[in-house]
Amino acid sequence: MSANTIGKIFRLTTFGESHGKAIGGVIDGCPAGLLIDLDFVQQQLNRRRPGQSEINTPRSEADEVEFLSGIFEGAATGAPIAFIIRNNDARSQDYDHLKDIYRPSHAGFTWDKKYGFYDWRGGGRASARETIARVVGGAIAQLVLLKSNINIQAYTSQIGKIILEKNYTALNLDERYNNAIHCPDDETAGKMMTLLEEIKIAGDSTGGVIDCVIRNLPAGLGEPVFDKLQADLAKAIMSINAAKGFEYGEGFAAASMLGSEHNDLFTASDEWTLTPATNHAGGILGGISTGSDIYFRVAFKPVATIMKSQLTADKYGNPVMLEGKGRHDVCVVPRAVPVVEAMTALVIADHLLRNRTSKL
Amino acid sequence: MSANTIGKIFRLTTFGESHGKAIGGVIDGCPAGLLIDLDFVQQQLNRRRPGQSEINTPRSEADEVEFLSGIFEGAATGAPIAFIIRNNDARSQDYDHLKDIYRPSHAGFTWDKKYGFYDWRGGGRASARETIARVVGGAIAQLVLLKSNINIQAYTSQIGKIILEKNYTALNLDERYNNAIHCPDDETAGKMMTLLEEIKIAGDSTGGVIDCVIRNLPAGLGEPVFDKLQADLAKAIMSINAAKGFEYGEGFAAASMLGSEHNDLFTASDEWTLTPATNHAGGILGGISTGSDIYFRVAFKPVATIMKSQLTADKYGNPVMLEGKGRHDVCVVPRAVPVVEAMTALVIADHLLRNRTSKL
Amino acid sequence: MSANTIGKIFRLTTFGESHGKAIGGVIDGCPAGLLIDLDFVQQQLNRRRPGQSEINTPRSEADEVEFLSGIFEGAATGAPIAFIIRNNDARSQDYDHLKDIYRPSHAGFTWDKKYGFYDWRGGGRASARETIARVVGGAIAQLVLLKSNINIQAYTSQIGKIILEKNYTALNLDERYNNAIHCPDDETAGKMMTLLEEIKIAGDSTGGVIDCVIRNLPAGLGEPVFDKLQADLAKAIMSINAAKGFEYGEGFAAASMLGSEHNDLFTASDEWTLTPATNHAGGILGGISTGSDIYFRVAFKPVATIMKSQLTADKYGNPVMLEGKGRHDVCVVPRAVPVVEAMTALVIADHLLRNRTSKL
Amino acid sequence: MSANTIGKIFRLTTFGESHGKAIGGVIDGCPAGLLIDLDFVQQQLNRRRPGQSEINTPRSEADEVEFLSGIFEGAATGAPIAFIIRNNDARSQDYDHLKDIYRPSHAGFTWDKKYGFYDWRGGGRASARETIARVVGGAIAQLVLLKSNINIQAYTSQIGKIILEKNYTALNLDERYNNAIHCPDDETAGKMMTLLEEIKIAGDSTGGVIDCVIRNLPAGLGEPVFDKLQADLAKAIMSINAAKGFEYGEGFAAASMLGSEHNDLFTASDEWTLTPATNHAGGILGGISTGSDIYFRVAFKPVATIMKSQLTADKYGNPVMLEGKGRHDVCVVPRAVPVVEAMTALVIADHLLRNRTSKL
Repeated sequence: MSANTIGKIFRLTTFGESHGKAIGGVIDGCPAGLLIDLDFVQQQLNRRRPGQSEINTPRSEADEVEFLSGIFEGAATGAPIAFIIRNNDARSQDYDHLKDIYRPSHAGFTWDKKYGFYDWRGGGRASARETIARVVGGAIAQLVLLKSNINIQAYTSQIGKIILEKNYTALNLDERYNNAIHCPDDETAGKMMTLLEEIKIAGDSTGGVIDCVIRNLPAGLGEPVFDKLQADLAKAIMSINAAKGFEYGEGFAAASMLGSEHNDLFTASDEWTLTPATNHAGGILGGISTGSDIYFRVAFKPVATIMKSQLTADKYGNPVMLEGKGRHDVCVVPRAVPVVEAMTALVIADHLLRNRTSKL
Repeated sequence: MSANTIGKIFRLTTFGESHGKAIGGVIDGCPAGLLIDLDFVQQQLNRRRPGQSEINTPRSEADEVEFLSGIFEGAATGAPIAFIIRNNDARSQDYDHLKDIYRPSHAGFTWDKKYGFYDWRGGGRASARETIARVVGGAIAQLVLLKSNINIQAYTSQIGKIILEKNYTALNLDERYNNAIHCPDDETAGKMMTLLEEIKIAGDSTGGVIDCVIRNLPAGLGEPVFDKLQADLAKAIMSINAAKGFEYGEGFAAASMLGSEHNDLFTASDEWTLTPATNHAGGILGGISTGSDIYFRVAFKPVATIMKSQLTADKYGNPVMLEGKGRHDVCVVPRAVPVVEAMTALVIADHLLRNRTSKL
Repeated sequence: MSANTIGKIFRLTTFGESHGKAIGGVIDGCPAGLLIDLDFVQQQLNRRRPGQSEINTPRSEADEVEFLSGIFEGAATGAPIAFIIRNNDARSQDYDHLKDIYRPSHAGFTWDKKYGFYDWRGGGRASARETIARVVGGAIAQLVLLKSNINIQAYTSQIGKIILEKNYTALNLDERYNNAIHCPDDETAGKMMTLLEEIKIAGDSTGGVIDCVIRNLPAGLGEPVFDKLQADLAKAIMSINAAKGFEYGEGFAAASMLGSEHNDLFTASDEWTLTPATNHAGGILGGISTGSDIYFRVAFKPVATIMKSQLTADKYGNPVMLEGKGRHDVCVVPRAVPVVEAMTALVIADHLLRNRTSKL
Repeated sequence: MSANTIGKIFRLTTFGESHGKAIGGVIDGCPAGLLIDLDFVQQQLNRRRPGQSEINTPRSEADEVEFLSGIFEGAATGAPIAFIIRNNDARSQDYDHLKDIYRPSHAGFTWDKKYGFYDWRGGGRASARETIARVVGGAIAQLVLLKSNINIQAYTSQIGKIILEKNYTALNLDERYNNAIHCPDDETAGKMMTLLEEIKIAGDSTGGVIDCVIRNLPAGLGEPVFDKLQADLAKAIMSINAAKGFEYGEGFAAASMLGSEHNDLFTASDEWTLTPATNHAGGILGGISTGSDIYFRVAFKPVATIMKSQLTADKYGNPVMLEGKGRHDVCVVPRAVPVVEAMTALVIADHLLRNRTSKL
């Protein structure tokens, strides 16, 4: 069954393998008349591009997007917007030694189980390179949201054991892309970079956490009972490669709180501005946005490809010592920041349009 | 836009409000020939029923399900299976004082924003009573899974600050429904019950965590890139009332692990039984089941209705002291255990059927 | 895979068998605030009810609809609207002799092939009694459309070889329900009734044609390239029991026309009222409504149940002489008129809401 | 809302405008392991290519398809299969005079109404050039069907007033592509060609009819009550540019038949080969295939672009004499034959996979 499409009204379908001809996608349901800011799209792509620093894979692709349809005189026409990014620096021979070995904690094993065979070159469709198409689709979604002044900002809040202690309200998120870690606190970013360099030297990898904030979202978005806003966000975010956990508002911490601590009482100057005085809820009640900031966190596992030797078994059950090879990131988190923004934007743009049909 | 349907092949559509005539649902896509074990369905309903202990709402409904269609001579016919549960003990007058007040941290505020008005009696459609229909649908899904020996077991692992320290592998999950807490460790369950009684006396409420394990799931379920198994599970689980967080495998703990710690190396006696030797992954790689156990955790916030006075604002912006009234649970977690099992079963049954079309 | 739901935003899910407990449905995505005119719903149901005349099945059900959810203080709340109609006059014993015989040109044969067994009582889910739920869903859809002054009127235009020669523009469609044939031309209706009485005496049945007109539809509805308005109408209409053909505008006659005959030239008094001067197109161009009337025709086959003896084979391949028994209509067309209106309304209401998201 | 995707399991999403960079599509849900016969795909494309004869548009595109993803070592991997066909011979200047005029009976008028503006170059997304992507998607679907020996053959049965009188059972459909008319009866094809040449000289255009037959389809495909096989076929076929009518089996002729004439009695040598002795039904009962041939007919309107002068109004309401210009077909029917086959294949492949989930 097909599962390369996300969204109900604003929909993105993606395609492409790491070592195929191209990565790409089709956006269907983009409202006609939207001006397509190509520079903005390319900027978001650049933010996930490899080779931004020492700790990223040196695979150096320009990752330039070509739009094929759906745009006329600079604006979306209502027809599907297709785009491709050609793969130029695909060094398949790096993967020849993996023809007979499932890499530990990679998807080759399960793709083989599901489909009977798989494209073993560079992870094939399971490669994080697939997220390029998400970033392009998400950038178009962000353009829709910016027309309503809705703002999405994600940032690195943890790398390994280094944790950014400040809450988003104490940070200037506009500065999040000023360093290669994509952490808006320079001091913490420095510590994180040092850690990553150490781990790289050790031939190992690590995980981390991304926080994301949505501001200026109007109240009323989200569709009970199954497409609650947090449910659709959780799905979109958990579909990102290496994501292991999602929480919003107080998240897991809410489990040990009392109702009297967690409840957000209402306050108002007048009827029209009634609003929760606090925001433990994380901007959503009953699956519908409250008008307060939405904030959530995503945990990522360590990169599975490491340079250390690993004693595993090949496809025929023989023990084999797998030596690390190829290009890889030490930690996926910094480059996943624009991907989290993209997936968030896709969900919110979809719900913004869906909500146009709620009332008579 | 409509959002009361979940699933692509095995689909559940639900309806009903807390104080309306009935709660119910329609299951579409249930494979013909499935024997419908009505006792099993009713047993699952009984496990979420109120009034099981002191710490639950005393609303005492029999919650007896009536099937209206889709079953002939004891088996599913392939036609949609509709069912209803009548609401008998709906005391709407308990809610009269809430006509002009949004209860803090309840969905009334957001439903009003979205739809322009709302059924304020007992939470209306936003009431957790809605989950009855999920439990019935999930029970039918479990019957599908049991034909393939797939087993889903959820249990209470945390109430407030009381945490069950044992891992699922050290517990006998068959005992999870032996106490009112739905925790398979009697000693911990006792402490949790004591805590809940204290909180009840204080007029407060608390949150908690549910763990869930899926066993005997074959490798190959899950649909990259957007309907990865963890993504669909996250969505289904996060759509449950009061859920605030979802993590699977090592979850948030993975963020601070090294790749060399987190990777699951392969082991095998022969080609056909190649399998990960450890299971940090939580039974899913690249969005597809590995054949190992799937395990995940869900955080729930404290119940929003408390007996303490709360200084909030009414709909017109006037400060108002809200006094607690009505029937309510001190903690949603024990009764949410069968709901987590139900939502899990719905996702897995859907993917089991979807996977029939993966290969030629 | 499930297929008892129609629509993308305004969605109807139906359930129920001819001889089960109830027929019913769930409407999801009805805009909140819509006043539900219960009398209008019941009126549409009455128009498809059996027993309206000699030529209908004497099965005499009140067919009273009970709404279970989604309506509060007379208006749609945005929550799903569920409804049921209990089956009271189900005489299953009439069908006992059919346990071992597939009735010729009935669906029992194919249901058995597909699902391995089937509910053979009165056609089960394949009975035209299923359309009750369509009529209720369609009536709610019509209430949505009436808010925009959109008007849908179907009528009998052919019974057997008796053809209504007048075009819809020469008829007063408000009079279509004044006779049991549901034909707005009394003289033709009289001839049709005479024909049906003759066929009834002969123990036979016949087919017919229904025409349908949609007026006051704004330009702009329909979604290229796969959900063109005529495509969604064709699907909805062809899903009605016994429908064999669909054509709109000039339909099959267009095949032998010249472009210079068929083209609709534009005319205008000013820019804002530019409109096609003729309407060979039938109100749709490129899959999108033009603002002119939409008109289409539906062919229905003869009722398969006849009172004549038929030499067929039983399930085991033995020749068997099947004698007609039970209650049945001589022609499905008169009672299908409100069903055609209902299916049309469901499609148009869905597209009306969908079109809210076309532009920025 | 998006509508450039068709299918539930075997899904095709298409994109591209007549004068944009490329036409293309994404196939999702193709079963892994299917060998992709590129020659077959190109052959189907060639059958709809312009420039095959005098009566077609001389626009001469190679229409060579490039596959971008989802195929590895010659077989479908289970990942989405994306493809593009570049537009090379797009002469946009031919359309400059149409910036201010809606062409009569073209979609420019309605696209403008719906989306606020439109790509007026060569019909943009509304051009029949869009069907290239359907033919590629349909060819892949046909490869799936050929594995089950299912065979789809469409052919021209009417051009203007020239009607092929023979039934499909009296024709050798393997010869349908032997002439430019795509009619399997050479004598009739000759008359049709003569007619088209006359109409071309007159600067006019005409319509026609395509018949289609599906053989070797197993019983059991189709999903009541809304995705009946004829309903999904009708939708797919009616979404083709210029289609005005759809009928299957006896179609509109069934309206004037008696039940005793139309009924298909069963016959059998033994239980396993029970089958309808005749096939008035057209191979479908109750929305599910019977195992007999499915046959249906599609009416197409005359091509809207003609070389005759037409007195119409421009966008500002001023009368204007529109002179014919540009390249165009005299009749769409011959080139639509492979498009009808493609849409039919897409529906049947989808239902073939869907039916894998019907039974336990």
